[in-house]
Amino acid sequence: MTRLGFFGPAGTFTEAALRTVPQAEGAELVPLATVPATLDAVRTGEVEAGFVPLENSVEGSVSATLDELAAGQPLVVTREVLLPVRFVLAARPGTRLEDVRTIGTHGHAEAQTRRTVAALVPGAAVVAAFSTAGAAAAVSAGEAGLDAAICARVAAERYGLDVLAEDIGDNSAAVTRFVLVALPSSPAAPTGHDKTSLVAFIHDDHPGALLEILEEFAVRGVNLTRIESRPTGAGIGAYCFSLDAEGHVTEARVGEALMGLRRVCDDVRYLGSYERADAVPPTVRRGTADDDFAEARAWLARVREGTAT
Amino acid sequence: MTRLGFFGPAGTFTEAALRTVPQAEGAELVPLATVPATLDAVRTGEVEAGFVPLENSVEGSVSATLDELAAGQPLVVTREVLLPVRFVLAARPGTRLEDVRTIGTHGHAEAQTRRTVAALVPGAAVVAAFSTAGAAAAVSAGEAGLDAAICARVAAERYGLDVLAEDIGDNSAAVTRFVLVALPSSPAAPTGHDKTSLVAFIHDDHPGALLEILEEFAVRGVNLTRIESRPTGAGIGAYCFSLDAEGHVTEARVGEALMGLRRVCDDVRYLGSYERADAVPPTVRRGTADDDFAEARAWLARVREGTAT
Amino acid sequence: MTRLGFFGPAGTFTEAALRTVPQAEGAELVPLATVPATLDAVRTGEVEAGFVPLENSVEGSVSATLDELAAGQPLVVTREVLLPVRFVLAARPGTRLEDVRTIGTHGHAEAQTRRTVAALVPGAAVVAAFSTAGAAAAVSAGEAGLDAAICARVAAERYGLDVLAEDIGDNSAAVTRFVLVALPSSPAAPTGHDKTSLVAFIHDDHPGALLEILEEFAVRGVNLTRIESRPTGAGIGAYCFSLDAEGHVTEARVGEALMGLRRVCDDVRYLGSYERADAVPPTVRRGTADDDFAEARAWLARVREGTAT
Amino acid sequence: MTRLGFFGPAGTFTEAALRTVPQAEGAELVPLATVPATLDAVRTGEVEAGFVPLENSVEGSVSATLDELAAGQPLVVTREVLLPVRFVLAARPGTRLEDVRTIGTHGHAEAQTRRTVAALVPGAAVVAAFSTAGAAAAVSAGEAGLDAAICARVAAERYGLDVLAEDIGDNSAAVTRFVLVALPSSPAAPTGHDKTSLVAFIHDDHPGALLEILEEFAVRGVNLTRIESRPTGAGIGAYCFSLDAEGHVTEARVGEALMGLRRVCDDVRYLGSYERADAVPPTVRRGTADDDFAEARAWLARVREGTAT
Repeated sequence: MTRLGFFGPAGTFTEAALRTVPQAEGAELVPLATVPATLDAVRTGEVEAGFVPLENSVEGSVSATLDELAAGQPLVVTREVLLPVRFVLAARPGTRLEDVRTIGTHGHAEAQTRRTVAALVPGAAVVAAFSTAGAAAAVSAGEAGLDAAICARVAAERYGLDVLAEDIGDNSAAVTRFVLVALPSSPAAPTGHDKTSLVAFIHDDHPGALLEILEEFAVRGVNLTRIESRPTGAGIGAYCFSLDAEGHVTEARVGEALMGLRRVCDDVRYLGSYERADAVPPTVRRGTADDDFAEARAWLARVREGTAT
Repeated sequence: MTRLGFFGPAGTFTEAALRTVPQAEGAELVPLATVPATLDAVRTGEVEAGFVPLENSVEGSVSATLDELAAGQPLVVTREVLLPVRFVLAARPGTRLEDVRTIGTHGHAEAQTRRTVAALVPGAAVVAAFSTAGAAAAVSAGEAGLDAAICARVAAERYGLDVLAEDIGDNSAAVTRFVLVALPSSPAAPTGHDKTSLVAFIHDDHPGALLEILEEFAVRGVNLTRIESRPTGAGIGAYCFSLDAEGHVTEARVGEALMGLRRVCDDVRYLGSYERADAVPPTVRRGTADDDFAEARAWLARVREGTAT
Repeated sequence: MTRLGFFGPAGTFTEAALRTVPQAEGAELVPLATVPATLDAVRTGEVEAGFVPLENSVEGSVSATLDELAAGQPLVVTREVLLPVRFVLAARPGTRLEDVRTIGTHGHAEAQTRRTVAALVPGAAVVAAFSTAGAAAAVSAGEAGLDAAICARVAAERYGLDVLAEDIGDNSAAVTRFVLVALPSSPAAPTGHDKTSLVAFIHDDHPGALLEILEEFAVRGVNLTRIESRPTGAGIGAYCFSLDAEGHVTEARVGEALMGLRRVCDDVRYLGSYERADAVPPTVRRGTADDDFAEARAWLARVREGTAT
Repeated sequence: MTRLGFFGPAGTFTEAALRTVPQAEGAELVPLATVPATLDAVRTGEVEAGFVPLENSVEGSVSATLDELAAGQPLVVTREVLLPVRFVLAARPGTRLEDVRTIGTHGHAEAQTRRTVAALVPGAAVVAAFSTAGAAAAVSAGEAGLDAAICARVAAERYGLDVLAEDIGDNSAAVTRFVLVALPSSPAAPTGHDKTSLVAFIHDDHPGALLEILEEFAVRGVNLTRIESRPTGAGIGAYCFSLDAEGHVTEARVGEALMGLRRVCDDVRYLGSYERADAVPPTVRRGTADDDFAEARAWLARVREGTAT
C-alpha cells in the first residue's frame, strides 16, 4: 500500500489538500510532525512521497519548506495543489454558539479570523494549539477546557465536531499552495501547462548575478512565476534564488535555460517539472518552441558541415 | 513619552530585538497582538512606530508583514535590526532539569529545538503557545501545567524564570530580521551603508516585467539584496515584487532607478531608506556615484545649450 | 550672404542634395575638395555649415565623414537629406549615343552603371574622374578626349550638357544620406520625428561595453536606427560606436539616456538632434514620454520629502 | 592551378594584401573589375576564392562588400588579412622629384596624401584614376601626361617605377582589412583565436531587435568585435546587422548563440569562421568554455532521467 507523508497532524489544511490528489486515494496518509520530518521521511523511503505547504501556509513555515528543499539529499516536486483556505468554527455536537467561551486554534489561523470571531462570539478567549487540527482534536476529547476550534472542515469531520459557523476568515480566502515531493525520477510527460522549480546558488563574488540568472531564462523566452531570494546560511550576502519557471524540463527552451544556469551558477538544484494546478499554459515567444530549437540545431549542423544554403 | 508598538506579547524575540534600538530607550513599549495590529497602530497614530519581523521570524508570519506593508496606508521602514535567535529552556526557580515534564512554546520554536530538547529532557511533552513569551508567562504563573518554556532570554528575565539550558536551537542560530516602521517622513541622512525597500506592482499584461524591473536597477548600478514575488490577490498571475536595494533614496542612482520603476510599473510603493544593520557599504560601479550623475547632468545642460566642448 | 560648404566639386550628387535644403536658397554654395576639408571649413568659420555624405555615398568615403565627426573640434548635424541616386549619361549638345566612345565618371558610379552602360553604348571605354561632376566638366570643356559623362542631372544642367539616357543605374536606385553640419548650438525645436546622433567611446578594459551602451538606451525606451563600430585608431580593440537614436535631445528619455552614456563611457560626443528626413515618428513605449518623466520626478521629490501617498 | 580572384587591377593594395596569404603562393591571381564581379566569379566557380576589402579600404567601397555578402548565393570568409596602408610616390626611372608636374591616383588615396604631397611637390596637379595601380600603369606607359603615381609599393615594382618618396600618407597609416571569400564548406579547425562573421536580419515588426540580438551573444559570453547596421533595401526601417563575433562556429558557446539568433531573427547568414589576423584570443567568461557546455548537457540528461544528484 502506498504511504504518503504529510505535514500533520491529521485534519489540517494540508491533509485536506492532500486528499484532492489522485495518488492519495487508497493510500495510507501518514501525518508527520514538521516539514523537515516530512521531507526526511521521503528521503529515507519511509514514505513514497511527502506533502508540504510551499506558499502562504496557514500553519507551519513556508521558509522551512523552501530551505529544506534547497539543502540535503535532492527531492523533486511531482504535483502542486492550490487550496482556498476556508476556516470553520467547530464544536462538539450539542454546543451552541452562545456556549462558546474558549476556542483553540493555530496562531496564524487566529490572526486570520480575529474580527469575524470577535463579532460571532464576543468575549470568547482564543488559545494556542500547534495546529488547527490539534485544536479540533482537543475539543473532541474535551481537553484543555476548549469549547470550539477554528479549523478546516476536514478536521471537524474527522473529530466528529459540528460546524457552528462557515467561512469565518476575515478576508476573502487566500489560496495556499502545497506540493507533493518525491525522490528524483524522470518527470511525468508534459501536459502543455507545466511548471519547473529550481534553486540557483550564485557565485558569491558576483553582484549582478540575479540579472544574469534572469537573462538565462529571458533569452530563451522562459517566464518566471515565482522568485524569492533566500540566505544560504553561508554568511552575509550569500544568497540563493528559489524560482518557478513556466514550462517542462523536457522542453527545449527550458532545458537550454537550465543548462545556462548550470554553467553560470555555483550550483543549480532541479526541483521538478509538474502540471500547473491552475492549468495556465505558458506564453511561448516566437522562436522558442521545440520545433524552432530543432530547426536551429539542424541549421547549425549544416553550417558546420558547410552545406547551409 | 514615545510609544513604540511591537508584535507581542512582552518577552518575545521581537521585544528583545526592539530593546537594541536607541529609540526604545525611555520609550513605552506596547505589545500588540498581531503584525497587522501593530502596523495599524502606527497608521492611527496610537504608537509612533511599530516593530515587526521581516525575515525568518521565529514567531508570526513574515508574509503578513510583507503583504501588510504593500497594501493600505503607506508606511516606511526607518531602521532594521538583525538578531541571532538563541533559545533558552526556562523554568521557575527551583525547578531542576529532571523535573521538567511539560514544556510550552510556539510551534516554530518547537520545530527548531526538537532534537536538542529531546536529548536534554527525554520524554518531556511540548505543548503549544501563541508565542514563546506567552509560554514563559504561563510557566511563571503556574498555568496550564507547564514546567518550563522554550523562549528568549528576555522572556525568562521578564517572568522571573531561571535558565536551565542555553542555546538549545538545533542548528547554529539563524538570524531574524526586524524592522521599525513609521508614518512616511523625510528619511534619515545617508550613512554610506543604507538600504531602500520597495514594492513594485507590474502591469498585468506584461510577461517580461520582472527583467524590466531589474534592468531599471542594473543600468544605474544599484544592487538588490532581497527579492520576493508576492501574489497581489488581484487574480492568478497578478504579482508584485518586494525588493531591498543597496543605497539611499537621496542618492542619485537610487533616485533615478526609483523614477524608472515608477514609469514602467503599474505602481511603486516606497518603503523607506535606512541604515543597514550589517553596515556593509554598497558596491558603487564606475559612473554611478552622485558626482557622476551631477557631472552628466551638467554636461547635458551644456549639450542642450549648444555649449558642450 | 550665407556660405555653405559642400563636398564638391559643383555638380555632384552632394550638391544636388544640398539644393533641396531651405538654407541653400540664396546662399553661396562653396565646393570643397574633400570631406575633411569641408568639415574644417566649418570649424574655422570659413563657411557657416558644411554638407557631406553620411551613408551609402556614390562619391567619397562615408567612413571619412564618420571618423572626422568623431574627432577634432566638435560639430553637430542640423539637418539630414535622403537622396535617391539617379545617374544620367550626358554629352555636349549634338552628340548622339552612337558617337560615344569614351565616358568619364567616378569609380563608384562606374561600378553601379556598368551593365546598363555596356548595353547602351557597347564598346565605349569608361575612364576615371575624381567625381561625376568633374567628368561632366571635362566633357563640357572638351578635355581628356571624353565624349560623355556618367553623372547627376544637376551636373548635366550646370555644364550645359544634354542627357542621352536617364536613370542608367544597374539596380533600383539606392538612397544616399547626407547631413548638414555646423558649429555646436542649441538644437532646433523638436518636430515630433527627430533623430539624435552620437559617438560613444567605451572604456578599453570593458568587453561587454556595447551591450551596456544599448541598455542605456533600451531602459529608457529609446530605439536606435543606426549603429556602427569604428576603430578609434588607439590600438587593436579600441572601438567607438557611431549611433543614431530616435528622438530629440530635449526629450526626457533621450536626455536621460545620454546622461547614462556619459556616465558609463570613457567619452560621449553629441552630434546633434534634427528632424528625420523620412518623417517617421518614434515609437514611444509606455512610461517613457516626457509627462511620465515629469510625473516620476515629482513623485520622487514627494518620496524624499516624506509626503508621497 | 589554383585561381584566386581579387578586386583589381593588378598592383593595388588589395593585391599586396593577397600576396601575404599562403594560398596565393603558386596560384594564378586574377584581377577583377569590382567587388561584385569578384564575388560573382567565386559563385560561378570561375575562381576558387575571391579577395576583397572589408573595412577602411583605400580603393573601392566597403559597403559594397558587406552588401554583396549579405545577399545572393551564400559565401564564407576563410581568411582575413590586415594591411597597414603605406603610399609611395612612384615615377619612371630617371624622373626627379622636381620634374613631377602631374600625378595620378585614386580619389581616396588623393585625400589621404594631400598635405604630404603638397609639401613634397608644390604646384603639382593630381588627376583621377580608377585605382592607384591604374595610375601606376599609366605612368609606366607614359599615358595621360602623368609624371608620377601615388600608389602601393607593389604597383611601383610591378610597373617598373622608381619610388621617389616613401610613406607619404598624411596620418599614421590606417589599417585596411581584407577577406578571402569562398563557397561554403566546413570551416578550418579552430586555432584558439578565431572570429565568426554573420549577417542577422531582424523581423521588421520588432523595435528592440538589436538588443535582443546582442543578448543572444552576451548570455553565452560571446563578444562582438564589429557591428554595423545596414539597410536591407526592403524599405525604410528594414535593417540587417553585419557582425563579427569572437570564437569559432564549432565552439559550443558560438554554436548556441548562432542557434539563438536563428530562432529569433527573420534570417541569419553565416559568413564563416576563420583565424584572427591579429591573433588576439577571445575572453572566455566563466561557464562558457566547451567543457562547461558539455558538463551542463550531461547534467541536463541526468535531470531528465531523474538521476541527477
